[in-house]
Amino acid sequence: MVQTEQITFYSHIYSPYGQRVHIALEEANAAYTFHSIDLMNKPAFYTKEVNPVGKIPAITYGGPKVDPEQPSPESTKLRESGVILEFLADLFPDSGLLPKDPVLRAKARLFITVVDGQPFEGFKGYFFMREPATKLIDGLDALQKQLPATGFAVGEKWTIADIAIAPFLARIFLLLENDLGVYPAGDGKKTLEILRGEKFARLNKYYEDVKAQSSFKATWDEDTQTTIWKSNPMFKRE
Amino acid sequence: MVQTEQITFYSHIYSPYGQRVHIALEEANAAYTFHSIDLMNKPAFYTKEVNPVGKIPAITYGGPKVDPEQPSPESTKLRESGVILEFLADLFPDSGLLPKDPVLRAKARLFITVVDGQPFEGFKGYFFMREPATKLIDGLDALQKQLPATGFAVGEKWTIADIAIAPFLARIFLLLENDLGVYPAGDGKKTLEILRGEKFARLNKYYEDVKAQSSFKATWDEDTQTTIWKSNPMFKRE
Repeated sequence: MVQTEQITFYSHIYSPYGQRVHIALEEANAAYTFHSIDLMNKPAFYTKEVNPVGKIPAITYGGPKVDPEQPSPESTKLRESGVILEFLADLFPDSGLLPKDPVLRAKARLFITVVDGQPFEGFKGYFFMREPATKLIDGLDALQKQLPATGFAVGEKWTIADIAIAPFLARIFLLLENDLGVYPAGDGKKTLEILRGEKFARLNKYYEDVKAQSSFKATWDEDTQTTIWKSNPMFKRE
Repeated sequence: MVQTEQITFYSHIYSPYGQRVHIALEEANAAYTFHSIDLMNKPAFYTKEVNPVGKIPAITYGGPKVDPEQPSPESTKLRESGVILEFLADLFPDSGLLPKDPVLRAKARLFITVVDGQPFEGFKGYFFMREPATKLIDGLDALQKQLPATGFAVGEKWTIADIAIAPFLARIFLLLENDLGVYPAGDGKKTLEILRGEKFARLNKYYEDVKAQSSFKATWDEDTQTTIWKSNPMFKRE
C-alpha cells in the first residue's frame, strides 16, 4: 500500500515503548519524521498539542506537513505503543506486522497480553526498585515458555508480538552487561550469568534472532544506548 | 462473510469479561455453542483442554463439531476477552465490531486501553474490597469525559470499545440499585444518587444507548443477574 498521509513520530531513543513503534515504522518502510522528546525537559507544545498524558511515544497522522513543534490541528494524534502498533499493522497490511490469518493474529495478541503483564514487572523491580532478580528471571523463563521451538512468537517472520518484547530484551541484556541498576555492584553480572546459562538457551537464541532483524538494527545502537544508560543518575554508585 | 468453522464459547453469565465476548458473538451473528463454566466448581477438562489459566471466557475455534466437554485437539483455543474481541472483529469484518478506517480502529482501541485501566479498579475496590466510592465515581467521570457528545465511543454505531465497557456499567448499576456490595447497608443507594445526578447526565444517556442494543439485550437478563448477584455470599449482611 502506498502511504498517502504524513506520520510524525515523537519519542526518545531510551524508551522501550518508543522503540516498539520505531521498529514497526521501519519494518513497514513507512515515511516518517522522528522528533525527539526529552521527558525531563518536556516542551510545552507536546502535552498541549500532541499527547495530553505527556508520555512517549505518540504520533501524528495526516494533515499538512508541518514543523513537528507546531503540530497541525488537522492531524490525528495517537498514543499508547500497543495502539500504535495495531494502527501501523492496519495501515500497512502487507508489512507482515500482523499475519493475515485471524487465528495467527489472535495468537500474536495473546502473546503480547501474556508477556506484557508478567515478565516486565521484573524489569522495573530489579533495575529500578531494589527488588531481587527472581521476578525478572522467572518472567523471562515464562516468556521463553511462550515461544515455539524455533522462529518467532507466531511463525518464521517476526510480528508485533516480538516487536513489543524486543526493546525490553535489549535493555535487560545491555544493563546487565554493564552492571547497571540500583542493585549492589556485581549483581548484574551474576544475573547475566544465570540468563546466559543452559536453562535460557531458547531465550538467547530468540534474542539473537531479534537482533538480526534489520528494523531492529535500524533502531538500536549499542554504543549510544550504553552512553545513555550509564549517565542515568539512578545508577550512580559510590 | 460466511462462518465456516465452529465456535464453542465457554463462560458464565455473571462474568463481565464473558459478556464482552457474548455481545460480540451476538453482534456478529456468529453461530456458536455456549457452554457454562462454574469457576467455583471447575470441571477438570476445562483447565486441561481449553484454558490452562483456568479463567473465563475462552473459545474453541475450528476442528470438528464435538461435545463442549470433550474439546477436540484440532481446534484453536483462545482466551483473554480483549484478544477474543479482536479475533471476532477480524473474523467478521463486516459486523462493524471495529470500523474499517484505521484511524477509527485506533481510536476504539485507545478508548479500551484508557478506560480498562482506570475506572474499573474502582469497581473492584468499592463492591468487593471495602474501598470508598471515590475511585469508582472518579473513574466513571473519566469514562464520561472520553465519550463524544452523542453516540458511542467512536461514532453512531457501537464497537468493541463500547462492548468492552457495557458489561461493567450494567453490573455497577445493578449492584447499586440493589444495594449489593461489601459496603454498609444504604451506601449503594447513596452512590447511585450521585451517579444519577446532573453531573453524570452523559454517562446515563450512554448507558441508555448501550441497553437499547439488541446484542446487549440478548446477553443481559436483569432478573437472572439480580438473582445471581444477590446470592453472592460476599454481599451477605447481618
